[in-house]
Amino acid sequence: MGEESSSSSSSSSLEKLEEEVARLVELAKELEDSASSFVAKTSSEEQSLRQRALSIDSSIKKLRSSIHSLDHRHHALKQKVEEELYRVRCSLNDGDLASFLPNKSHGTFLKKFLGPINVRATRKDVQLKVKEEYNSYRDRTALQFLLFPSALLLLRSWIWNGCLPALPVQLYQAWLLFLYTSLALRENILRVNGSDIRSWWIYHHYCAMAMAVVSLTWEIKGQPDCDHKQQRGVQLFLLWAVMQGVAMLLQNRYQRQRLYTRIALGKAKRMDVVWGETAGVEGQLWLLCPLLFILQGFEAYVGLLLLRTAFVGVVSEWQVVFCGILLLVMAAGNFTNTVQTLMSKSRFKAKVKRSKSKQELSLGSTAKNL
Amino acid sequence: MGEESSSSSSSSSLEKLEEEVARLVELAKELEDSASSFVAKTSSEEQSLRQRALSIDSSIKKLRSSIHSLDHRHHALKQKVEEELYRVRCSLNDGDLASFLPNKSHGTFLKKFLGPINVRATRKDVQLKVKEEYNSYRDRTALQFLLFPSALLLLRSWIWNGCLPALPVQLYQAWLLFLYTSLALRENILRVNGSDIRSWWIYHHYCAMAMAVVSLTWEIKGQPDCDHKQQRGVQLFLLWAVMQGVAMLLQNRYQRQRLYTRIALGKAKRMDVVWGETAGVEGQLWLLCPLLFILQGFEAYVGLLLLRTAFVGVVSEWQVVFCGILLLVMAAGNFTNTVQTLMSKSRFKAKVKRSKSKQELSLGSTAKNL
Repeated sequence: MGEESSSSSSSSSLEKLEEEVARLVELAKELEDSASSFVAKTSSEEQSLRQRALSIDSSIKKLRSSIHSLDHRHHALKQKVEEELYRVRCSLNDGDLASFLPNKSHGTFLKKFLGPINVRATRKDVQLKVKEEYNSYRDRTALQFLLFPSALLLLRSWIWNGCLPALPVQLYQAWLLFLYTSLALRENILRVNGSDIRSWWIYHHYCAMAMAVVSLTWEIKGQPDCDHKQQRGVQLFLLWAVMQGVAMLLQNRYQRQRLYTRIALGKAKRMDVVWGETAGVEGQLWLLCPLLFILQGFEAYVGLLLLRTAFVGVVSEWQVVFCGILLLVMAAGNFTNTVQTLMSKSRFKAKVKRSKSKQELSLGSTAKNL
Repeated sequence: MGEESSSSSSSSSLEKLEEEVARLVELAKELEDSASSFVAKTSSEEQSLRQRALSIDSSIKKLRSSIHSLDHRHHALKQKVEEELYRVRCSLNDGDLASFLPNKSHGTFLKKFLGPINVRATRKDVQLKVKEEYNSYRDRTALQFLLFPSALLLLRSWIWNGCLPALPVQLYQAWLLFLYTSLALRENILRVNGSDIRSWWIYHHYCAMAMAVVSLTWEIKGQPDCDHKQQRGVQLFLLWAVMQGVAMLLQNRYQRQRLYTRIALGKAKRMDVVWGETAGVEGQLWLLCPLLFILQGFEAYVGLLLLRTAFVGVVSEWQVVFCGILLLVMAAGNFTNTVQTLMSKSRFKAKVKRSKSKQELSLGSTAKNL
């Protein structure tokens, strides 16, 4: 009797179970159908938005060229129309439409590492999150950039008696390689997502990656006669890295401040990377610019020193020559790019002044960071 | 007179120009509005799909646990319901709904290198393109994997008189580092996109990355006394790499063949990676399995040889010990994973046979690669 009742209750619960499963299968089918129709509908709508965006893009280009062919008698009009077109372009780039404009190419670097995956975020808030994360990543790495070589240099004089052991230095080099690779990847991703980062700063990280790999193959000689063999190059390089860390920290702080000011003034898009070269807050510019130029000079000096070491003949490894040349190239590139930015900044400032005096440029315009 | 007419025609063309610009501004505004409303609408619909997918997901889990608590008297029913739930799960994973199911976590590796960018493709065809590209990337790298060390070994005996110069070997090591990094990145991306790649094969690539970095710091000693110092370890490692290349080529070919067969039979999702461990086409299994086991044995042998070299005391660099241990770990991991896969394969086969005899499993069911 007891067994019968338990078996009947169990069979009723079994029935219920089977019902539930059947209902679930039904639900899953429905959901799948609505997902398919959603995907189909969305992709066709996306297609049409993309086409309309493309046609506006090409109209802007056409109008621009026809304005260029106007003769100089219509200078005022020309300028006015150009600014208007520019504003349209900026607001397209900045709004929700941005993700439907023709894709910026992903570039070989990303394709090599990641394959053909799309790293462009469609939603603006996701793009901004990526940007924010990049900024805080730079903050964190700047700190490490400062602490790691400082620790090496301190330990060298306190514990290691002026002779760096191989392992910590190699760990540092491997860390640099990882760091520069991740920065290069992230900056490429930012560019795909609409940031106007100068390409030099990405190339700069490619160079730094190459240098990190090469420096890993560079044999670090120990005792005896360590001081002589561990050329001053390594120490200077570490010192330069410490300075770099300080500069990065300062830059990050002021650039972020400045980016926010510029966004508030409507002068910058939030995706803009205000990288090394720039420092808008006037007072900071006088602190940062000399620091940047000193850093670049120091970089070139370390490069020359390495080359001298190689040619005087104490160390004749190819790595020394390679790193020396690379440092010189990086210093030269950094210098030209900083100067170019400063120049275009002052040109931009002059233009703003001119425009202001003509009362033509409204505060809300989204003039781009040139 | 001529001037006047030209000026009037120019002023009319100017008017037309201004009109066009005004029209363009209007168009841009409209387009932006429709883009914003599209994005808002889409994301709210996505949200609701995601919620529905989540609720089905949790219902499946609940039903599963209540089935587990059934006693063994209802074995047949239990199995039937379990299979049904499994089928629902698979079809959800495979269809358009897949992108709305709770995201697989991106994992630390991707986050470290790329930041918080989303690498999950929403559209199924894009996911498949990623998969296809991954396969052809593996084909290309397998070839390079074969040719690069072969060339080094041949040149060593033909030109370099048995003594490998540092630069080509270091280039090879740097290439390996890049290769393993990109493979690890791509496999992580595939996993996010729904592939069921075994995690060991990704860990395996992390180990290989570590080994490549360490081997870069490994000083390659030249003349005099090169043969003695360039331990047989390096040569054996290169030889192992050549064998690895051959195995990869064979694997790629047969796995692709097999994946297509399995897709056609409805046994695999197209995102599945049929990596090293598996080789379904029966005849090939007898060719590949011994080759894989020989490779793993050889890997372990090279590892042991390195460790012996280190402890006998010819070379006492830490890199030798590290690489030796890493090779042993990788060989052991590869071995266990291959055996596990073969075992689950035969278990799966037995299950399929059983099911077939019971006429329970339809050919079209999407039984997953266990």
